[in-house]
Amino acid sequence: MKLMDGKAIAKQLREELAVEVTEMVAQGHRPPHLAVILVGNNAASETYVNAKVKACKDIGFESSLIQFPPEITQEMLLHAIDDLNENEDLDGFIVQLPLPNHIDDKTVIERILPSKDVDGFHPINVGKMSLGLDCFISATPGGIVELLKRYKIETEGKHCVVLGRSNIVGGPMAMLMRRNTYPGNCTVTVAHSRTKNLKEICLQADILVAAIGKPEFVTADMVKEGAVVVDVGINRVDDATRERGYRLTGDVDFKGVAEKCSYITPVPGGVGPMTIAYLLNNTMIAARKRK
Amino acid sequence: MKLMDGKAIAKQLREELAVEVTEMVAQGHRPPHLAVILVGNNAASETYVNAKVKACKDIGFESSLIQFPPEITQEMLLHAIDDLNENEDLDGFIVQLPLPNHIDDKTVIERILPSKDVDGFHPINVGKMSLGLDCFISATPGGIVELLKRYKIETEGKHCVVLGRSNIVGGPMAMLMRRNTYPGNCTVTVAHSRTKNLKEICLQADILVAAIGKPEFVTADMVKEGAVVVDVGINRVDDATRERGYRLTGDVDFKGVAEKCSYITPVPGGVGPMTIAYLLNNTMIAARKRK
Repeated sequence: MKLMDGKAIAKQLREELAVEVTEMVAQGHRPPHLAVILVGNNAASETYVNAKVKACKDIGFESSLIQFPPEITQEMLLHAIDDLNENEDLDGFIVQLPLPNHIDDKTVIERILPSKDVDGFHPINVGKMSLGLDCFISATPGGIVELLKRYKIETEGKHCVVLGRSNIVGGPMAMLMRRNTYPGNCTVTVAHSRTKNLKEICLQADILVAAIGKPEFVTADMVKEGAVVVDVGINRVDDATRERGYRLTGDVDFKGVAEKCSYITPVPGGVGPMTIAYLLNNTMIAARKRK
Repeated sequence: MKLMDGKAIAKQLREELAVEVTEMVAQGHRPPHLAVILVGNNAASETYVNAKVKACKDIGFESSLIQFPPEITQEMLLHAIDDLNENEDLDGFIVQLPLPNHIDDKTVIERILPSKDVDGFHPINVGKMSLGLDCFISATPGGIVELLKRYKIETEGKHCVVLGRSNIVGGPMAMLMRRNTYPGNCTVTVAHSRTKNLKEICLQADILVAAIGKPEFVTADMVKEGAVVVDVGINRVDDATRERGYRLTGDVDFKGVAEKCSYITPVPGGVGPMTIAYLLNNTMIAARKRK
């Protein structure tokens, strides 16, 4: 078994981006600039947002954190988005989800200018990805595909099973893995909560992507010998032996599955770091078009 | 084996739409209006376009056929689209594909106002379908789903295998069949030209959708006893016994497969008529929003 070390590959990707920033600046251009809108004070969202801002700084990107109180009206948030859409000093921006209940996610996301939608959540970016057109691929599936590429995982004609059908991971992963390109050209199966013969389906996977949000759900008996396993889950599990009272675990029973598979991503240190690195990558893509 | 009689169900759907048109007109509204742009004189395209225009007339829709010579510039075609986008006398329009080589399909399709894109080909409609949002579902997959619905085919937890990954059929069918609704909630596998163990994959299908463009490709040995088989193919096969020198056949070996499956669509008279009926349905959806 080989580890697909998302932390190391994310570092590599960030270093490549940092070199490009230096070149851009040397040529007299401003560095890429990402803005992040955070509404309210959800602790997890604050952690994510801070990590994104820090990641920008570390590689020489400009970043702006725009915070609004939880009671901001939808109208005001949409106005703020209009301002960012028009602001030529930034290349891309994201609105950290979830938003408070009185604000409609869909309306907000559809207000973002598609060419600045570096999260790739706007329906037009989703549609373009599905059609194989130039677009922003959202950061988690984009990061996973980048990881497979850097480990030179063979995909053509392989059977990729995606566990989970979310709009953020399962759906786009299925589309990306069936595309007529590399990585891609897989036979792709999407399984989910309504799937009856889940074990049987998983056992067919040459590449298994677990994005089902259930801690250690995928066990060794569900994995084919030599499969490539990508664990997208990040679950908190009570653990009295840890000082903070919990540990982070993926959707895969790492210990058991690691013995059977050819490649596997750890949690933490697998898909997570790739997601942030890929957001930076999307911001660079937006910045390149500016010139 | 029961036949899924697309011709009969399409007739039913058209009759329902005709009743609605009568009510609309009685209430003082104008009937739904579909415009079709045809560029050049491709014989097959002319046949399709005439069938669409005739279908409109038969149920009381207004229709406009806008023909351009093959040498029309892209610029002029885009201007024509802008006019239709702004024209409040019509509810929806389509540009018949294929277009001449000097015109870029993508540019043309993206110019269509999404709210008038009754073919559902604009990336924003594709993206919205993928995200489960309100949108125009393109006519072939939309028609197939309608057919499954009217035959009350059970889909939840079933394994749907889609043969083919085209943007027009295979891709959208996969998205629709995995949605959390009825018809939907299937485990979905997309197989295609790069799939290695195609027979084995097909044999798992409770619902098999063949959209691979190869005459009589799916044979009885590839179909599970009791499966539901949807044949999207329309292929011309040489046949000296026919006056016109060919016969139309689907992607499924109908004779052999019919004996094994629970339901099957014939070719012709299956998916084809549903496609045209569903285009009318989309035009009605657009017209309802006008009021």
